[in-house]
Amino acid sequence: MSTTTSETPSHKESKGGLEGIVAATTALSKVEGTAGRLIYCGYTIHDLARKTSFEEVMHLLWFGHLPNHKELSDFKLALVAERTMPPMVMQVLRDLPASTEPMDALRTAVSAWGAISIKGHPSIEQALAVTARFPLFLAAFHRLRRGQEPLESRSELDHAANYLYLLTGQVPKDEYIKGLNAYLVLLADHGMNASTFTARVVASTEADIVSAIVAAIGALKGPLHGGAPSKVLDMLNAIGMVDNADSWLHNALAHGERLMGFGHRVYKTEDPRAEELREMSRLADPQGFVLARHVEELALALLEEQKPGRRLYTNVEFYSAVLLAAVGLIGDLFTPTFAMSRVVGWTAHILEQVHHNRLIRPEADYIGPTDLHFLPLSER
Amino acid sequence: MSTTTSETPSHKESKGGLEGIVAATTALSKVEGTAGRLIYCGYTIHDLARKTSFEEVMHLLWFGHLPNHKELSDFKLALVAERTMPPMVMQVLRDLPASTEPMDALRTAVSAWGAISIKGHPSIEQALAVTARFPLFLAAFHRLRRGQEPLESRSELDHAANYLYLLTGQVPKDEYIKGLNAYLVLLADHGMNASTFTARVVASTEADIVSAIVAAIGALKGPLHGGAPSKVLDMLNAIGMVDNADSWLHNALAHGERLMGFGHRVYKTEDPRAEELREMSRLADPQGFVLARHVEELALALLEEQKPGRRLYTNVEFYSAVLLAAVGLIGDLFTPTFAMSRVVGWTAHILEQVHHNRLIRPEADYIGPTDLHFLPLSER
Repeated sequence: MSTTTSETPSHKESKGGLEGIVAATTALSKVEGTAGRLIYCGYTIHDLARKTSFEEVMHLLWFGHLPNHKELSDFKLALVAERTMPPMVMQVLRDLPASTEPMDALRTAVSAWGAISIKGHPSIEQALAVTARFPLFLAAFHRLRRGQEPLESRSELDHAANYLYLLTGQVPKDEYIKGLNAYLVLLADHGMNASTFTARVVASTEADIVSAIVAAIGALKGPLHGGAPSKVLDMLNAIGMVDNADSWLHNALAHGERLMGFGHRVYKTEDPRAEELREMSRLADPQGFVLARHVEELALALLEEQKPGRRLYTNVEFYSAVLLAAVGLIGDLFTPTFAMSRVVGWTAHILEQVHHNRLIRPEADYIGPTDLHFLPLSER
Repeated sequence: MSTTTSETPSHKESKGGLEGIVAATTALSKVEGTAGRLIYCGYTIHDLARKTSFEEVMHLLWFGHLPNHKELSDFKLALVAERTMPPMVMQVLRDLPASTEPMDALRTAVSAWGAISIKGHPSIEQALAVTARFPLFLAAFHRLRRGQEPLESRSELDHAANYLYLLTGQVPKDEYIKGLNAYLVLLADHGMNASTFTARVVASTEADIVSAIVAAIGALKGPLHGGAPSKVLDMLNAIGMVDNADSWLHNALAHGERLMGFGHRVYKTEDPRAEELREMSRLADPQGFVLARHVEELALALLEEQKPGRRLYTNVEFYSAVLLAAVGLIGDLFTPTFAMSRVVGWTAHILEQVHHNRLIRPEADYIGPTDLHFLPLSER
């Protein structure tokens, strides 16, 4: 027996990727794809990357303005005070086998931490508490998987420097601190990217801040979002030296391979973050920079020659990989380190979402059977 | 110093909740809000709730058709074979304090399980493996928090019955099994709800299936989505007996309180799931049903009288709470049990998303400062 459903399919405008659909208003960041500009709360990313600490950018995104000297010093004290690891979370990190992907370890540790630490509606205090702990979770897992004991934070070190210290046990050199700080500033927010959107959808149900952050970590893990920067490093390692670059790149393109680190869905010119990351890469590792820069220039020329009109420019992943490798990180820590930066944007967006909340619930266009089947009781 | 950004704000159509925006096509379920009808793959929810097992509905949503006898028997064997708890995940559940919210415990356990169990792209095998373990994770945590040792699954029990057994150590009576089975069937999918949408957004980045599920658990936790059914129970417990209902409800409405279990963003008539859940509640606990039914009828009459035209009908939460309490669950297990059902819809949607994937990335309308500030180097 069959009949037809009473409501005909709506066939509303269907956009699988929600391109051009405005999902929220935000005062946090503006991505100008054609101009190649990114601003946070009225400041260009170039200014911020060169002149501010990651702590100042946290303050900017959470409070809407850069801190004055007194505010910054209080803010840093508050962050340092949150650098504690509950024994339960450390135990969960010890439970995970050494082969666990760091993004999975981070997702699990943050979830466990939230289970015992978060009560009530999202707040700046919660955003600060979880952001302060990302380096602790990551570095503890990294040391444990290598058979090393996790270290205690050093209160005189800022966020970027303390992370490198927790990983290595050594106070890093200034070029590394400066480079990682700029990286953290540059990646902290980027409009309605997929992980930030995920965080806002979860927050819109009035779930807690950690549920939204854990969801965003999952989205950032995807290779189409934050999960592929280490592939740039793989490419550079495969090329190995300047003299190999030309033949390697020609060969890759001839075999239809995608060159990693070029092209972006939004930017139709060079990603503004790439300029800053390039300079920081040069400062952090002048020798390694020579190969990266050579490969970049060659790749851009080849892409323009072979794919004219595609407008494939250097994206944020290319020099993110070069810089993070230059400051001493191994490839599978790139995406979690991206998360360590972006958690500031996620939490700022969560706070913005819940301030004027409406449940985010789009529709689906049903394309399945509409001639209803009926099940006779006896048949089953 | 200040200047103006070069790209003027787009002021595209802005809909905070994405109402009326089609985010995906789906062959899985159709929600007819005006007619009050819900269908999965061409079958009405009424037919499925009365005549099929939850296992058959899993098969329907993952494979697109109901199983024949041989398929069902193979499918059940495959599910039973996945009822294993890795010692690492059990250890993580033991690490969590007894005061942990079950939704947080579920989120953390699933995340930990995914960290060691999931490789490669989303598949039906993965969907089955994670769905089979939800009852194990939940029941183990529930027993541990009560100081009881977790139990081993019984292979002769189906999904619904095994869950109740794992919680209590007793093979449940038929009315409980039938009631919980119908509940699991009825809640398994519901168009583009917030948690399903979350799962699709995460899957669209090409993240793994567990990252998408963990994200969806977070969304379901929110009171505006799945996180409030126990409040219906609180209301019924506060009313306590039939004779109190009239004065209690009048008093609540007079104080501007919201009556729990009525009204839905999509349904402008009775939620079709409520009819089935009502009947199952009556069968599972005829005595408790009397109060629930009395409160429902009285509340509907009062709401119609005091808020005419609002069309507030009984929603899925009302009899979900009554039924889950009737089969023996305590209030904080209601939402995780909802997750145990909805994970089937989440995974079916994830598989659908990745089959024809496009990164889901909407836009934001920037409303922050556009007169750019410049930072003098000396100032900071």
